[in-house]
Amino acid sequence: MRAALYTGNSTIVVEERPPVPPGPCEVQIDVAYTGICGTDLHILHGSMDDRVRIPQTIGHEMSGHVAALGTDVADLTVGTPVTVMPLRWCGACPACLAGHHHICHRLTFIGIDSAGAMQQRWTVPADVVVPLPADLPLTHGALVEPTAVAVHDVRRADLHAGAKAVVIGGGPIGVLIALVARSVGADVVLMEVDTRRRAIAGELGIRTLDPARDNPTGEVAAWTGGAGAAVAFEVSGSAAGIATAVELLAVRGRLVVVGLHSQQREIDLFRFFWRELTMVGARVYQRDDYDTAIDLLRAGEVGAETLITHVEPLANAAAAFDALRGGGGVMKVLIDCRATS
Amino acid sequence: MRAALYTGNSTIVVEERPPVPPGPCEVQIDVAYTGICGTDLHILHGSMDDRVRIPQTIGHEMSGHVAALGTDVADLTVGTPVTVMPLRWCGACPACLAGHHHICHRLTFIGIDSAGAMQQRWTVPADVVVPLPADLPLTHGALVEPTAVAVHDVRRADLHAGAKAVVIGGGPIGVLIALVARSVGADVVLMEVDTRRRAIAGELGIRTLDPARDNPTGEVAAWTGGAGAAVAFEVSGSAAGIATAVELLAVRGRLVVVGLHSQQREIDLFRFFWRELTMVGARVYQRDDYDTAIDLLRAGEVGAETLITHVEPLANAAAAFDALRGGGGVMKVLIDCRATS
Repeated sequence: MRAALYTGNSTIVVEERPPVPPGPCEVQIDVAYTGICGTDLHILHGSMDDRVRIPQTIGHEMSGHVAALGTDVADLTVGTPVTVMPLRWCGACPACLAGHHHICHRLTFIGIDSAGAMQQRWTVPADVVVPLPADLPLTHGALVEPTAVAVHDVRRADLHAGAKAVVIGGGPIGVLIALVARSVGADVVLMEVDTRRRAIAGELGIRTLDPARDNPTGEVAAWTGGAGAAVAFEVSGSAAGIATAVELLAVRGRLVVVGLHSQQREIDLFRFFWRELTMVGARVYQRDDYDTAIDLLRAGEVGAETLITHVEPLANAAAAFDALRGGGGVMKVLIDCRATS
Repeated sequence: MRAALYTGNSTIVVEERPPVPPGPCEVQIDVAYTGICGTDLHILHGSMDDRVRIPQTIGHEMSGHVAALGTDVADLTVGTPVTVMPLRWCGACPACLAGHHHICHRLTFIGIDSAGAMQQRWTVPADVVVPLPADLPLTHGALVEPTAVAVHDVRRADLHAGAKAVVIGGGPIGVLIALVARSVGADVVLMEVDTRRRAIAGELGIRTLDPARDNPTGEVAAWTGGAGAAVAFEVSGSAAGIATAVELLAVRGRLVVVGLHSQQREIDLFRFFWRELTMVGARVYQRDDYDTAIDLLRAGEVGAETLITHVEPLANAAAAFDALRGGGGVMKVLIDCRATS
């Protein structure tokens, strides 16, 4: 079979590899589509070289069919369409004992800390496999993982129908958050500097602002009758994004930190005090976020056809990463692992 | 009557003034005790000169008896022991319409934006007057306002019985938070650099740490079996206090911002994401916080006799401010407004 490997030095190489047979409690998946995530770009840029084992197949947003079962696997059948929830927790640390497995102190992430999905046959522990409805297109199935991120973020926001929410950053996760927020009845504005990304969000019926040109706080003040937004999702990972979020929230407003901030950020704590704001971190997802994500994709709430701007054969994986790095009109890129040329 | 006036230039002057007769919907109070708050020190230092009208009587932590009623005042009787909840809201802004009167966009604070309680007769709107139980000593009654601050902070923390909480900063508000947190069943550690303040907290049965000498995160890790604290109250207003709080919280831990941070603070947002932390601002109090504060003081949960380290006659108000500015063994200072010499 063929696999796309990260070989260090910002390089992806597609080559022939022997498939890994499923051991006890493992499942081998015939991979259909694997999406490229922002985290995969971080890996490609070398930012996670302390976690990946070069050369390593990466990727964790995927869909496929069960190809083979190891021993001791119940509840799964060869041929079932599936995706993967790529988290492994210890079950014994204080976080796990408190029921927060997804933020386990020793959490490992399949596709970063072990081999990922950008290959034709992928062997994973059976307990991370999530069956998909037979009527969900496999291209849409590859969006379950990022949609579950957005579902988790919206759940952490305590969003209610009619609430006004701002999403700062309009990449795939930002747009998915806007769509999931809309699905719970929130009134949403998305801020994104890139014209083409704003256009894609606009096609999905999301109201957008350009924070570089428009006056974000002024616009939000006008939109909310001077109150400010009930919720802000910071998805850009930028210092400006955090500052804008803190500035535009209403009293008792809630800021959800989704974007990765690798540096400390200056925050106006007086504003937190004065308006009794709340800030919450939101990391990956829990199992029920997957169920909700599947339901939303099946109901067509996520605009999968619009979000998937590119589908490339596995042989072109390196070029697909390059296109995504270029940003702009590229939103979600899927690698078709069945098409090798 | 005599009144202590802030006259600018870090100066308090006690002089003779005519009492203000109560107008319609106003009450004149025969003031017994007025506590000195950190905010009063900020005023003395000139930090709030844009809000006070020099010369102005300051002070807002108080107790006394109703001395005279203006017209149109129902539900109050001359002679009733009372305190004051010194907030005035507009009732019409988005915060008020959402039910958050205490964070009204146009909130004014009696004792800052208008004349305060450090005088023998104080005239205030009738709707800010809160009756006190007849059996509550008036020295304790002067602690209702700061205790209500602590009650509000603990309520914003969602503290549950058995939860482990850290309070950073052991001035009067920090110690009151520790006591209120203990009253709801939390297991509390207080961090304070000043030896004498730690000793006072120790007298009240609060476990203390010296963050300058002990290793706060190490101690908290050991205390919580590696989990970290469920709640941290940042009361010090310092950059180090915020950094320590973020570092010692458990997954899904909650940081309550109580201290005033006049500068932006650097915050480790990656940690917020990684541990799904929450940070909330907490400002003043709501009416039911006053009721709880009165109940706690009446039940002896607040250690009022230990917290009140000094009672000075009104004539000595300037010296009392000086003593508090010196810090150290001084915890809560009350001005006895009935004793003029």
